[in-house]
Amino acid sequence: MTSSSVSDPVLADVEAAADRIASTAIVTPLLESPLLNDRLGFRLFVKAEPLQRTGSFKFRGAMNRLAQLDTGERKRGVVAFSSGNHAQGVALAAKLLGVPAVIVMPADAPAIKIANTRAYGAEVVLYDRRTEDREAIGAKYASDRGMTVVPPYEDARIIAGQGTVGLEICRQLDGLGLKPGAVLANTSGGGLIAGVAIAVRALAPAADIFTCEPADFDDMGRSLVAGRRVANPPGGVSQCDALLAATPGEITFRLAQPRLTGGLAVTDAEVDDAMRAAFEYFKLVVEPGGAVALASVLTGRLPRRYDNVVVVASGGNVDAPAFAAALNRAQPL
Amino acid sequence: MTSSSVSDPVLADVEAAADRIASTAIVTPLLESPLLNDRLGFRLFVKAEPLQRTGSFKFRGAMNRLAQLDTGERKRGVVAFSSGNHAQGVALAAKLLGVPAVIVMPADAPAIKIANTRAYGAEVVLYDRRTEDREAIGAKYASDRGMTVVPPYEDARIIAGQGTVGLEICRQLDGLGLKPGAVLANTSGGGLIAGVAIAVRALAPAADIFTCEPADFDDMGRSLVAGRRVANPPGGVSQCDALLAATPGEITFRLAQPRLTGGLAVTDAEVDDAMRAAFEYFKLVVEPGGAVALASVLTGRLPRRYDNVVVVASGGNVDAPAFAAALNRAQPL
Repeated sequence: MTSSSVSDPVLADVEAAADRIASTAIVTPLLESPLLNDRLGFRLFVKAEPLQRTGSFKFRGAMNRLAQLDTGERKRGVVAFSSGNHAQGVALAAKLLGVPAVIVMPADAPAIKIANTRAYGAEVVLYDRRTEDREAIGAKYASDRGMTVVPPYEDARIIAGQGTVGLEICRQLDGLGLKPGAVLANTSGGGLIAGVAIAVRALAPAADIFTCEPADFDDMGRSLVAGRRVANPPGGVSQCDALLAATPGEITFRLAQPRLTGGLAVTDAEVDDAMRAAFEYFKLVVEPGGAVALASVLTGRLPRRYDNVVVVASGGNVDAPAFAAALNRAQPL
Repeated sequence: MTSSSVSDPVLADVEAAADRIASTAIVTPLLESPLLNDRLGFRLFVKAEPLQRTGSFKFRGAMNRLAQLDTGERKRGVVAFSSGNHAQGVALAAKLLGVPAVIVMPADAPAIKIANTRAYGAEVVLYDRRTEDREAIGAKYASDRGMTVVPPYEDARIIAGQGTVGLEICRQLDGLGLKPGAVLANTSGGGLIAGVAIAVRALAPAADIFTCEPADFDDMGRSLVAGRRVANPPGGVSQCDALLAATPGEITFRLAQPRLTGGLAVTDAEVDDAMRAAFEYFKLVVEPGGAVALASVLTGRLPRRYDNVVVVASGGNVDAPAFAAALNRAQPL
């Protein structure tokens, strides 16, 4: 059975994922700043995924996928390719479940990410981004060792796992007696926004849901407008290293399209300012790609007609020099 | 009735404080990093007070104190003097309770702290640190307007409020089936360590409890050794602006002395490294004074014989340029 033959996830799958990962994943806090609320004129909540295991939401999907391997699959192990957060998510999930893991990473990935992935116990296979094909390398491990490929987003169980972010948002707001007016999440391949949309659309049908992307990498937003999957123009540059997928996934777009309100896009400079705002108002380290939804709100790109706005800060894996440079470049609010 | 005539707080007072502030304060998360645990060889938990309202634990004590004002006292308002975190804690507590607040701040305090204190709705009175006496200014407001003085630490209800940090630590570890082996908190006047010690000593009698201070400002640690309150030598310099009190308080020392195991002191360079470690492993913004307990562990000053170590990261109110500079100076672990 391949991943894509699993039927499309619904709310019950997200709820089952939440139960499945409850003992290993963090229910991350929904942060709020009275000072920032006063400035904005509405309540802004930040879902703090940098505080998730491995520093990003990716652990949720990885754990939900690996926990559903059968005994034989667990023994043979998993293989994933990623230069960043998915690598660490899969590596830790594999470690906790005692599953061997091979992670195929570009040799020029940040040293800290390679070191962390190894520290979680995974076997890291480096490849040359210019001359080698990571999918071919992954496929070789899959066929030679019978390993299960764990894709970053085109997988119903990965998407259901990421959807627990949306489920928690609705539950946490419910605990405050609130409903979300708008929910915004960062998008690369679309696993996060698809999962979040499944949960939020089911539990808060009146909420508007937005995909947020870097300018020139807003393929999901433009695909919503076009009504079909379109690719980013070539040659784009962004500091949001986690959000550079060329097109939405087929599965993720199918799930997201009927549930999303629209797309918002922000510049690198606006991402700097959002990272600084997260630092200042929420005391939270957010990586560039993790700050795009927050930037969409702070720049006023989100229409100002919601009382309760939730942004997902999707990750915090940024090198110290890069973070310091972003703080120094940023304009205070 | 003056503050000091209230009897010394005990566990029941801390528990009552927790109930009293439950609807306004955050139960901050107890963060953990599997990667860092592996490197250290034991489990390290970080009590994340930068995520508290106003970015530090100070809101807890302020809220617990102000919530106990009687009707007349609420109308007449409160006055506090502080250049930093206590100012913001009192200002927000006053705002939430509809109590007028005057905060006496040095004119050369960081602009952001003055601006934030004003943004919380307090009346800020600036004074010249070299030529004016802040206590005299505060006393004038107290006598002219009948305002209640809210001291930063020499007050049983402030201490009980700060003690909720220790109560939450014990409850959160209990939820994991654990007891703390060692608990470390940063100390200036001693309100935090005294409150934490009351809760931890009562709920986890076997735990060791340490005060952590900047080198040359380790008056609490040296007072424990001396068996009496001693002052810091003059002329010391530290980037830990929140931890520069000259001596332990009389009340705080009386409460802390019988409950503490000892004191640990760290240098400014070690604080840089701890701020970077908090950034990297916990994705948390910690101000210099908030990182001293973490630094005490990472430098190996804490004896290596505990399985479960808890450090309080007491605040995160640091300006962006200062934080960026600390990251750039720091050595990675």
